[in-house]
Amino acid sequence: MSVIAVDAMGGDEAPSVVVEGAIEAAREGIQVALVGDQAVLEQHIVRIAPQGAPPTLRVVHAGDVIEMGDHAALEARTRRDSSIYVGLQLVKQGEADAFVSAGNTGAVFALSLLLLGRIKGIERPALGGVFPLPTGPVLVLDVGANAEVRPSHLVQFARVGIAYMHELFGIADPSVGLLNIGEEPTKGTPVVIEAHAALAKSGVRFIGNVEGRQVFNHVADVVVTDGFSGNVFLKTAEGAIDVLFREIRDAATSTLRSRIGGLLLRPALRGIVQKTDYRQYGAAPLLGVNGAVFIGHGRSDARAIASAIRTAQRAVDHRLREVLTAAIAEASDGAPPTDA
Amino acid sequence: MSVIAVDAMGGDEAPSVVVEGAIEAAREGIQVALVGDQAVLEQHIVRIAPQGAPPTLRVVHAGDVIEMGDHAALEARTRRDSSIYVGLQLVKQGEADAFVSAGNTGAVFALSLLLLGRIKGIERPALGGVFPLPTGPVLVLDVGANAEVRPSHLVQFARVGIAYMHELFGIADPSVGLLNIGEEPTKGTPVVIEAHAALAKSGVRFIGNVEGRQVFNHVADVVVTDGFSGNVFLKTAEGAIDVLFREIRDAATSTLRSRIGGLLLRPALRGIVQKTDYRQYGAAPLLGVNGAVFIGHGRSDARAIASAIRTAQRAVDHRLREVLTAAIAEASDGAPPTDA
Repeated sequence: MSVIAVDAMGGDEAPSVVVEGAIEAAREGIQVALVGDQAVLEQHIVRIAPQGAPPTLRVVHAGDVIEMGDHAALEARTRRDSSIYVGLQLVKQGEADAFVSAGNTGAVFALSLLLLGRIKGIERPALGGVFPLPTGPVLVLDVGANAEVRPSHLVQFARVGIAYMHELFGIADPSVGLLNIGEEPTKGTPVVIEAHAALAKSGVRFIGNVEGRQVFNHVADVVVTDGFSGNVFLKTAEGAIDVLFREIRDAATSTLRSRIGGLLLRPALRGIVQKTDYRQYGAAPLLGVNGAVFIGHGRSDARAIASAIRTAQRAVDHRLREVLTAAIAEASDGAPPTDA
Repeated sequence: MSVIAVDAMGGDEAPSVVVEGAIEAAREGIQVALVGDQAVLEQHIVRIAPQGAPPTLRVVHAGDVIEMGDHAALEARTRRDSSIYVGLQLVKQGEADAFVSAGNTGAVFALSLLLLGRIKGIERPALGGVFPLPTGPVLVLDVGANAEVRPSHLVQFARVGIAYMHELFGIADPSVGLLNIGEEPTKGTPVVIEAHAALAKSGVRFIGNVEGRQVFNHVADVVVTDGFSGNVFLKTAEGAIDVLFREIRDAATSTLRSRIGGLLLRPALRGIVQKTDYRQYGAAPLLGVNGAVFIGHGRSDARAIASAIRTAQRAVDHRLREVLTAAIAEASDGAPPTDA
């Protein structure tokens, strides 16, 4: 029986929403190891589940909490009692099969590399953002782990991204696009131009450059980019959608006519809000580390945490680590000779 | 009396929509020099204005057209009969005061540098995107002219951006943000980290790093970034808003209830579409070239072209070139000693 370790102390509203989300997932039968301050967590558990926590939930004590921010991420290596450190140690020692955190992304990234290492053939793991488009999910990676990349990293992002979308979302032969500022192969920075050439001969189903707006037309199932541009993409999409919903909400209360229209349209609009909700897929996989690690949105609520835990469980059920390892090993065989 | 030169051959639906937009602006009293194939343009003018074109409109012949794409942009320097070359020559020779094109951005950028040059103290001109937020306009630059930048370029983008927003939009003391992937000064690429430090001591009203989603909360009036990330920002925002409106349109026809709701809400939604419409501000200024140059969206329709011409006229009325030149000269005085 597999176990999902969950960082109870990570996220804007930790630990309360994390405990709530963990209990929700545990009630569905998922084995959850909630990592954090034992006394604090037990108080929350009693409050949230006064009739008793499900037997699938247990608490693993970790006395320290890594705050948000770069400074804390830098210290993370030495703070061995932190919930992130302890949670990843559980995975390393085989006591858990996956780790979920909505905490400090930099710290989770650094400690995942330190404790779990990388899959053979992967130079840099990437944070994958799954975007819920009306036509189905699109994976953009990296969305923030590596501000700068080399062309070879982008090819590796494509390979792990393809394997993830194939295995977790059942997409038969995922296509790959390169985020760029124009369609021509000569567009963009030197890194991107070189990556275009490398992807074209990599053997992946490469459809070429993809501009920001085309991502929403689902021209590719996997979109590779450096962590700076990918993060700009992710947050711009969130911001644009938020501001538009805010405007619609205001508009739908501006006049009596609009108010009635808004009430009638509400169920349909709510459907859209749900469809475009980042919480649907719960967490971003850290693809390329030697283990299943998922990073949740800092703004995660209980529903998002539960969804992240379910995603982690699915990844374990699908043997994510083995699948990615095999995909990279296979690519190295098929690729032009390297010194790897 | 000032004259606005307009590239009649640029844009997805040129020349028809350009002629239409130019006639609209000319009817309002703006002096327009429409640059392109004389015979073709005269046919369009007769069709669009059978009762006769306004006396404020004249045609300047240019026999060549630079297509979209990088390859064409590279050739632009040698194609002296192109509408872009001829239009910018009019500005250079003082026969026109500004140039508007919805054509090949790379070609307009390259030929502006070649024919008009840069404002003293500016290393790299930037393309400025004006985003119509509910709270007012926000200028993001660069949105695509320079895929890579140095920290000093970003400081110059801030200075021209401030001058533009102050002069053209009447913002008293425009604030500046640096597009980044986190709030801490240590976030991002080495270029961005260095730019953060340079902006902090530049004397501009620098509010620090701004993430993609915060731009929509109007935390800064001017947001500086490299042309790659800025272009990703621009196109992601467009794509996200488009996909959401498409979804709402579908939802508003899915059931009878939704259909009635949609009809009642339509005027309010239309207001939002208009508010968030890129055509509102018509064109992106090329800030830092020694002249007033505006680049329209490739998808521009007649309304967007007319709006771009009005924006160019306003820039001329506000003596944009002189204002930017003075702003840069003043900054060089106030800045720490350099070898400039």
